[in-house]
Parts: sequence; structure tokens; C-alpha cells
Amino acid sequence: MTFDDIVSARHSVRAFDPARPVPPEDIMALIEAARWAPSACNSQVWRFIAVTDPERIRQICAQGMGPILRNKFMRDAPLIIVGCAELDIVANKIGTKFTGIEYYQLDMGIAMEHIVLKATELGLGTCWVGWINEENLRSTLGIPKHVRVMALIAVGYSTETAPSKRTRKPMRKILYADQWGKAFH
Amino acid sequence: MTFDDIVSARHSVRAFDPARPVPPEDIMALIEAARWAPSACNSQVWRFIAVTDPERIRQICAQGMGPILRNKFMRDAPLIIVGCAELDIVANKIGTKFTGIEYYQLDMGIAMEHIVLKATELGLGTCWVGWINEENLRSTLGIPKHVRVMALIAVGYSTETAPSKRTRKPMRKILYADQWGKAFH
Repeated sequence: MTFDDIVSARHSVRAFDPARPVPPEDIMALIEAARWAPSACNSQVWRFIAVTDPERIRQICAQGMGPILRNKFMRDAPLIIVGCAELDIVANKIGTKFTGIEYYQLDMGIAMEHIVLKATELGLGTCWVGWINEENLRSTLGIPKHVRVMALIAVGYSTETAPSKRTRKPMRKILYADQWGKAFH
Repeated sequence: MTFDDIVSARHSVRAFDPARPVPPEDIMALIEAARWAPSACNSQVWRFIAVTDPERIRQICAQGMGPILRNKFMRDAPLIIVGCAELDIVANKIGTKFTGIEYYQLDMGIAMEHIVLKATELGLGTCWVGWINEENLRSTLGIPKHVRVMALIAVGYSTETAPSKRTRKPMRKILYADQWGKAFH
């Protein structure tokens, strides 16, 4: 698959085959792709918990989600990757003081998207899940207080009958030339 | 190139050929890759300014950088992509109130990394630059007050004599199984 093929094929999958696990070597390949992601000052704040134990996945779904929405489809995912950030003092505390940018949040987006794109190439469906209850996830998974839980990725083999339709803003709404608001070309 | 090839080849390039511009169709291909990125509630907060005007690049380098470090190599980049976030009220204000996660920062990381990976496939060098002066970039580029400037990507053809060496934490330090701290396998 070319990179464009992967970007085109990637969409949020919300129906997984619970009987078909993700092979351990594929889990390793996903994390290996993330491991080589860039990060602020090469701080590599990312830590990943690959949850495959069904009982723990049940706990994540019951207690680890944000209010109201429960993301029921996650119960069938054979793998949930929990994205955590263990903050680095230089890039992520001193740097943020000067610029106001939370570098670790950008970095977690970068690294976890490497996982999503690699999964797509491996024929796996994924769904980013950001609607989480951080405190409950910490206690469910034994994550220390100083570590931030940023997002989950549900991973598995899709059982969708038809992939969800993807809509996007047109290019002219998101790309400018040389200054804000100036059309490109 | 396979996805693994792209991830392996990607590294921070800090030496560009100033005489070799990035073709407009390649700039479009970079933004097209970002356009199909996932985002919280499909909010698509990203807006990109593709700066190729040498005078404006000079201004960015003179005034748009954070204190002390000046990233001199950027002056030779034929293209600087400025990543901006125009915040969506539902995902990015109400959502953040409940969970404390700044979804737009994750989303900007995701979309801008699509640009970086696509650039790598096109044979272009890139460098993420997060050490910015947001207020000065706003006034240099006419960016409205309600829009956040998150990061820049310098893009161009590399003139490196040897690529920078990449170092990463070993897998066992970043991947756990089922709970924090438990070895995978």
C-alpha cells in the first residue's frame, strides 16, 4: 500500500470481530511504528498499554469512559491501546512555560497516529477514543498519578457492513498561501 | 515506499537547498494527506499557511521563533507550513471541560504528522518546529486572535551530508501488557 492508499483506507471502525485477536507480532509492529515518531526534544513521553485481557477491556468500557457516551462498540475490540504520557521536564515543563504549547499533547497525537496508520496497512480497523475518564483509567490500569492518559485506540478486525462515510472541508477552506486568508494559487 | 520505509526514512532535516523550491502540486499533496486525518468529532480544526515567499520566511525566522534558540536552518527552507487551529466549540470547548484533554492539540499533531510522512514519501526533508512565538507569528501572518498557532514544519530538499542519528528508548520501556508496568510477553 502506498501512503495515499493508507490515508484513504483509514476511517473510524466501530464494529469489531470479538473472536479474532490481534496477533502479538502485529501489536509489536504497531508500537514499533510509534517508537520512531518524532517528539519535542526527542523526549519520547509516550507509554502504551496494550490491553487484550477481556475482563480488563470490560472494566475500561464500564468505568474508563467519559460521561453520557459509552462507546459500546469498544466491548468487542480485541485490543485497546492506552496512550499515556510520562512528562519530560525540559521539553514539556520548561518549554511550555515559554510558548504555552503543550508539546506532549502534540507528540501523543503524532505517535498514536503512527499506530493508526500502521494498523490500517496491516488490515486492522481502528478508532481513536478521546472521550475518557482519566482518573478511572488510572485506577483500573494502575497508572501512576504523574502520568497523563491522553486517548485510547480500539483495534481489531472490522465487521462493518459498509464503512462510515468520511466528509472533509474543501482544500480552499484549510490551505492559505503566505498569509492567513490568502488563496493558494 | 512501504509505511515502514517512510517511518524509517523520516528524520529531522536541518539543512535545506534554498535554490530548490517545493513544487505547488507537492504542497497540495501534503495538505491533501492532512485533510483526511481523523479529528475529535471530525472537527477538522486545522488550517495551514504554506509560506514560500522568501521575505515572509525571513520575517518568520527573525520574529516568529521562541527565545534564545533561533533555528537558523529555517532561513534556507523553501517552504514553511504554519499549523493553526481554529477551535470548534463542541469537541474543543465543551469536550475539554469534561475530560481535561485539549483535543485540538492531539488533532494538530495527527494532521501535521500526515504532512511529514507524505513529505518523506515525496523525497522532501522536514523538521517540526515547536519553539515559536505565537503572538509574533500572528502579527507577521495576519492570523486572527481566536486562532491558535501550534507548530511549524520546515520543508525542502535536504543538503545534509549525513542524516542526524536517531535514538529511541527500547520497546520494553514504552510497551506494557494489560496494566502499567507489566512486561509485554
